[in-house]
Amino acid sequence: MTESTLTKVVLSEDQIPTHWYNIVADLPTPPPPHLHPGTREPLAAEDMTALFPMGLIAQEASTERWIEIPEEVRAIYRLWRPSPMYRARRFEKALGTTAKIYVKYEGASPVGSHKTNSAVPQAYYNMLEGKTRLVTETGAGQWGAALSFASEMFGLSCDVFQVRNTYEGKPYRRMQMEVFGGKVTPSPSNRTHAGRELRLKFPHTTGSLGMAISEAIEEAVKDPNASYALGSVLNHVALHQTVIGQEAILQLEAFGERPADYLFACAGGGSNLAGLSFPILRENLEGRASTKIVACEPKAAPSLTEGEYKYDFGDSSNMTPLLKMYTLGADFVPDPVHAGGLRYHGMAPLVSHCYSEGLMDAISVKQLDAFAAGVMYARAEGIIPASESCHALAGAVEQARKATEDGSSPVILVGVSGNGQLDLPAYHEFIQGKMADS
Amino acid sequence: MTESTLTKVVLSEDQIPTHWYNIVADLPTPPPPHLHPGTREPLAAEDMTALFPMGLIAQEASTERWIEIPEEVRAIYRLWRPSPMYRARRFEKALGTTAKIYVKYEGASPVGSHKTNSAVPQAYYNMLEGKTRLVTETGAGQWGAALSFASEMFGLSCDVFQVRNTYEGKPYRRMQMEVFGGKVTPSPSNRTHAGRELRLKFPHTTGSLGMAISEAIEEAVKDPNASYALGSVLNHVALHQTVIGQEAILQLEAFGERPADYLFACAGGGSNLAGLSFPILRENLEGRASTKIVACEPKAAPSLTEGEYKYDFGDSSNMTPLLKMYTLGADFVPDPVHAGGLRYHGMAPLVSHCYSEGLMDAISVKQLDAFAAGVMYARAEGIIPASESCHALAGAVEQARKATEDGSSPVILVGVSGNGQLDLPAYHEFIQGKMADS
Repeated sequence: MTESTLTKVVLSEDQIPTHWYNIVADLPTPPPPHLHPGTREPLAAEDMTALFPMGLIAQEASTERWIEIPEEVRAIYRLWRPSPMYRARRFEKALGTTAKIYVKYEGASPVGSHKTNSAVPQAYYNMLEGKTRLVTETGAGQWGAALSFASEMFGLSCDVFQVRNTYEGKPYRRMQMEVFGGKVTPSPSNRTHAGRELRLKFPHTTGSLGMAISEAIEEAVKDPNASYALGSVLNHVALHQTVIGQEAILQLEAFGERPADYLFACAGGGSNLAGLSFPILRENLEGRASTKIVACEPKAAPSLTEGEYKYDFGDSSNMTPLLKMYTLGADFVPDPVHAGGLRYHGMAPLVSHCYSEGLMDAISVKQLDAFAAGVMYARAEGIIPASESCHALAGAVEQARKATEDGSSPVILVGVSGNGQLDLPAYHEFIQGKMADS
Repeated sequence: MTESTLTKVVLSEDQIPTHWYNIVADLPTPPPPHLHPGTREPLAAEDMTALFPMGLIAQEASTERWIEIPEEVRAIYRLWRPSPMYRARRFEKALGTTAKIYVKYEGASPVGSHKTNSAVPQAYYNMLEGKTRLVTETGAGQWGAALSFASEMFGLSCDVFQVRNTYEGKPYRRMQMEVFGGKVTPSPSNRTHAGRELRLKFPHTTGSLGMAISEAIEEAVKDPNASYALGSVLNHVALHQTVIGQEAILQLEAFGERPADYLFACAGGGSNLAGLSFPILRENLEGRASTKIVACEPKAAPSLTEGEYKYDFGDSSNMTPLLKMYTLGADFVPDPVHAGGLRYHGMAPLVSHCYSEGLMDAISVKQLDAFAAGVMYARAEGIIPASESCHALAGAVEQARKATEDGSSPVILVGVSGNGQLDLPAYHEFIQGKMADS
């Protein structure tokens, strides 16, 4: 293939994937099942019906390789998909690197991140089964905004518990949810039993995703017209995000590039990493590529690199099924670092399984290194990356520097999961030299 | 032609225009020249050399129809251009209209608006002539951010005087300028003679574009390595923006659509309106279309619909050349409405000339109608429009309602000049019912 001189590759609408890719079908060993928290037996479909519609429960347990994307979902995807891929030539030049850097960019979605890829099908399947209301939690606010948008697309109402730290510190994201019709409550709140208990136990807490999940579940379960919705971690969420990686493979081809040598993606709950990497992991497993996949997590919430691989709860009040994952403990409350989307205590079971099987690597990135990479990227390429995405860019920067030292020209694929327009106060802090290096 | 089922048309990089289109070449009567404020004689090129590089001065006075876009500028344009065009089917449905609505969207640029289309060539021509620093003013902050970005692209420093009202009320935009390397000062300031005079005269002023222009000009003129840069109003700025309309013509064709029946674009200084409409006005003048072009200005700063057509200064301290334009007076300070980009006292001389010759129409839009249209558009299409762009959408909404009443299906082209991520506090105010209807 001849290397292209294009700056970006934007696919046509008919190249939006027709199916989601389920990595479970191709894994060398089956991933450990979710367990019922009472019996510790593998979870049955009926154990989840209070929380999720059957369409999503079936996907959670599916071993089918390809699951068709409903046309109603693809119609909404077309509002912003396919997402662009850039050859970041000016960033390469700024780094003085011999490496070639390609960026798959999810920041042009309605809410500015990859989260809408799963929010839209989640709202769709709920609408299909007669639900009229969704309840969820959100950390940085990206997932809450995505679900507010998706609910609006299918005529559902949307109730969001937002981690208090970001509710207060990042009001723009709350306002974005309101524009899309979402109703937002800071968590922990007095609206739920779980919230009231948590406020008694931790009166000064800035909140955590685990706490907000407990509140959202409680609120959803008590309304028969409502479902709960989760923005990461679970298998069906990872599944929906695989539109990213499938497009990325076509785009690298259109750039006339061989499979990537490296893939860097930020990992909080794991859905962004899974979405970009699983279709490429399939290429690895089938011998068409040997891409080194690197999860980039923040030093402040290092579940893969410093957590324990065990069954744990997804929330703080032990209301979820038990999930086998790398975890820092369900009551872990990280420092209020700026990459709010990366503050979760655990890592998606499918990502955890791949990591434990040696199919992926992981690094942890310090906050200042992440923002230094983000500012450099913004000034070179004109895109201000989300604070989460800065971690992936920092991973790529380090790899590019190694390449320059040994004179190699590897192809580095970076997932930039969102734009940082609503993270500008964090950039301001970094540029003013006032950011802590957690 | 057959009407397309596509949601959006995204052109390929080789369809970025190779030339800017100069409407002056095709106007039935020549536009009145800018005048020297002392002699009131037509301005000579040498009168402007203290402010602008020769490359831009030549464009300001050019009567050539096509002016080639330098490859170095097109290389930067490729970071985000061509910009997409959407068929807003869900918006049509929400309106229940028989009209067909197409949206040309400039909100995916590095700073989220059309302003980068002119900032990049302005920085380029200055770099080419050895300047190392640009000084400018900004209202809502979009132009300041665009010039900060463009300066960074060509290694120049950038000094921005921002209207105090938005400097204080919209800190995110200032932070965006900082990320792109801009240095921002609230205006009027104590840094300049003009600023100090204005603060004495109006101690409680929230600032105005006219005042900030005076400060920027003074600051630029005293540094031989610096140039001044203006983000709207002047002929060369309108010229650069014509990439928008040229792409839009190709995109309407790709949609299989006849020329638009109506074009709605917001108009503050006039560059966005000029950019989208001038290439289409050429189609009108040459008999290939009969598109009704409608400038949408805010009721709070209605230069076309309520101003006087006369020679006036571009700034508050009478430092600019005299420009023949529809104006509310150079000392006009509008209410601090949210569409900061539409608060200028005058209208671009080329737009003013076209309007006075009957080649364009104009309407004024009240703030609440603008935001109602913006929220409706966001909830239908997943894009939160800039507060400026909401005025164009409101114009289109009214036209679409008329079409439904008389059962017609006109093609309505709307320019959405930017995204509203940094206007979220205004949306919040609107949704809370706290916005004034100025």
